[in-house]
Amino acid sequence: MQPAAIIVYRLPWTWKCSKLLMKCIHAGLHLTATVLAVVALVAVFDFHNAKSIPNMYSLHSWVGLTVVILFVLQLVVSIFVYLLPFAPVSMRAALMPIHIYSGLLLFGGIIATSLMGITEKLIFSLKNPPYSNLPPHGVFVNTLGLMITVFGGLIIWITTRPGWKRPPEHVLKDQHPFGSAADEASTADYSKEKSDEDLNSEARKRNLKLDEAGQRSTM
Amino acid sequence: MQPAAIIVYRLPWTWKCSKLLMKCIHAGLHLTATVLAVVALVAVFDFHNAKSIPNMYSLHSWVGLTVVILFVLQLVVSIFVYLLPFAPVSMRAALMPIHIYSGLLLFGGIIATSLMGITEKLIFSLKNPPYSNLPPHGVFVNTLGLMITVFGGLIIWITTRPGWKRPPEHVLKDQHPFGSAADEASTADYSKEKSDEDLNSEARKRNLKLDEAGQRSTM
Repeated sequence: MQPAAIIVYRLPWTWKCSKLLMKCIHAGLHLTATVLAVVALVAVFDFHNAKSIPNMYSLHSWVGLTVVILFVLQLVVSIFVYLLPFAPVSMRAALMPIHIYSGLLLFGGIIATSLMGITEKLIFSLKNPPYSNLPPHGVFVNTLGLMITVFGGLIIWITTRPGWKRPPEHVLKDQHPFGSAADEASTADYSKEKSDEDLNSEARKRNLKLDEAGQRSTM
Repeated sequence: MQPAAIIVYRLPWTWKCSKLLMKCIHAGLHLTATVLAVVALVAVFDFHNAKSIPNMYSLHSWVGLTVVILFVLQLVVSIFVYLLPFAPVSMRAALMPIHIYSGLLLFGGIIATSLMGITEKLIFSLKNPPYSNLPPHGVFVNTLGLMITVFGGLIIWITTRPGWKRPPEHVLKDQHPFGSAADEASTADYSKEKSDEDLNSEARKRNLKLDEAGQRSTM
């Protein structure tokens, strides 16, 4: 759910959709992920209590709970700053690098928490034969762990390519995050003028130019 | 060792050093990290064999060995592409985003591997009282795990801030990665003309301008 929310601005076919719609999808997916995380946490605590297993002792649980708390915090702050029409454009601009960085770092934290959870679960569950004998179940879940890691790397690749960045809003430059009816109409006109392919190709070129300029100093 | 190697270009006081020197430090620190990783791996296998513990069954070992192999691969490829004077500038430019992405992803992989290793070790070592009772040793190592996570986040923050990027080489624009004696002299002259503070402030402004342009479309 969160990976989909992260890359939603990076899908070129969404670039012709209004920014507000994309923001709502981005926030909605994150909200759904949060609800699912809370349901999962309640289930874990209930399971532990029913089986008399202590709670919150492992590094997995420490990192995991920290990630969930920061995730909720990021969601609430972001709704106030980017979705609701209160924050000035300068504040949105100033907080955007932190918003992106925190989002990706939390995503990395989720991957790390999953890997620790898998490690714990395999050690505790595989007894006969033990995990150290690498039974088929162990191979299967280890492979799942590797796939989660590769998936995480893929999402971070997609999210950090400047060529897949949503192009700038040529029309929606007003300070009201919801835009006006006139703005929406103008955006539609702009989209009609340019074919999808032209728009995507133009945006990619613009973004790659920025990327090139950004990379020059590192060569 | 690797974190230091990653951020070595990001320390403003190093911007007046020659690019070649910085490349050698960057490569040298990575090489040292690789040697230490290989020594550590040999120690782990020896320890396992001495205690009759099976090797390479856990997700920690799968992810860890994958990371070490890719790390060595990245090192070898990067020495050929960026340090030795064989690759053309266009190739260096084309591979730079992959070089940066791979480096940071491998760093994330190292953090994740450490956290899984800590999880395993605590479960196996803490028996009386067990890890689930959270004895002081458990609290201490869990805290270490959290600190490793925060440290990872900090390094990634430093590495991804455009304001801390090394400024472009105004003089060393030749296609030879080692530069010439004349180039080195010109760089020294340029450095003398501008005070450190001016140079850093100029570079930061340039980088932030790029950052601003890059961020515009995400707001």
